[in-house]
Amino acid sequence: MAHIDLGVDESQFPGIRGPMAYRPETAKPLNELAEVLLRAQPHPLTPGERELIAAYVSGLNDCNFCCSSHSAFAAAQLPTGMKLVDEVRASVDEAPVSPKMRALLHIAAAVQQTGRAVTRELVAAARDEGATDLEIHDTVLIAAAFCMYNRYVDGLATLSPTDPAAYTESAKRIVEHGYQAPVRTP
Amino acid sequence: MAHIDLGVDESQFPGIRGPMAYRPETAKPLNELAEVLLRAQPHPLTPGERELIAAYVSGLNDCNFCCSSHSAFAAAQLPTGMKLVDEVRASVDEAPVSPKMRALLHIAAAVQQTGRAVTRELVAAARDEGATDLEIHDTVLIAAAFCMYNRYVDGLATLSPTDPAAYTESAKRIVEHGYQAPVRTP
Repeated sequence: MAHIDLGVDESQFPGIRGPMAYRPETAKPLNELAEVLLRAQPHPLTPGERELIAAYVSGLNDCNFCCSSHSAFAAAQLPTGMKLVDEVRASVDEAPVSPKMRALLHIAAAVQQTGRAVTRELVAAARDEGATDLEIHDTVLIAAAFCMYNRYVDGLATLSPTDPAAYTESAKRIVEHGYQAPVRTP
Repeated sequence: MAHIDLGVDESQFPGIRGPMAYRPETAKPLNELAEVLLRAQPHPLTPGERELIAAYVSGLNDCNFCCSSHSAFAAAQLPTGMKLVDEVRASVDEAPVSPKMRALLHIAAAVQQTGRAVTRELVAAARDEGATDLEIHDTVLIAAAFCMYNRYVDGLATLSPTDPAAYTESAKRIVEHGYQAPVRTP
């Protein structure tokens, strides 16, 4: 049970969806930020690649709901599906990602620790592999944003479904309608 | 110098203002979130009290720009000014804040570590001192949000002014116009 009364059936509004139903005033910019960072086009990184960064950071933060959600969202939009997500989460250095994506994931891992861990060397390494300013900017902000979303979800002790089907269902909704679709509230 | 070319004179757009000028698409929800969390009325916590939580978390994250900024914004809106901000940053347990604010600051400090550090005991302690669900929700989200803003500012190695007058000037602008005022870009 969540730390506060979210005013909804938590099993129908698991994870971040509970506090978003409770406080639509903050849900609005939170969803807009996710939409711009993870889905908006045109963008040099695909939605699958951006969701992969989100899933990876959420895993580093041990946030089960966000990691399961964004792993499913990444898998649904990457040609290699959940296999690549699992490989990245197991080892960024051994996973079959492009050198550019590997360098961006290294930046994301630094941000997860603290912004000050993003060194000139990590940025130069990404640039050497072809990363643009926009890709570096958005990687830093995606990683930073998930340090927020993860703490929001876990800091309120929201429900994290154990059935993987719940996340596959959410992935269909996000891929089809995005983060800003109207939410049914009771 | 920032890690990426922000396209502006950094001395005129220090800290988060540089990347916000660089990427207005993400600046919009980031500013809206700050406005709702820190300034919107009606709210059971004053803007000064909410800025105090932001300054405290930014200090725990060692983010000089955000901590200096939100300390100045809190000081400008608290009856006891910068003295109270300094006392809270030095010791939440000894600072002359209300028992409710002290309990909320304990929750904020837990969130800064990880969402999972927010225990039922910390929440019960805040509730015992009169904290409402909304105050607990917003404290968790303010603390989580500053774990994002702090990483964004430092992860891009933005400029942090050393002259305190820079932050006092910003405080005037925020108190008068809020976080969503249009930004001059060159």
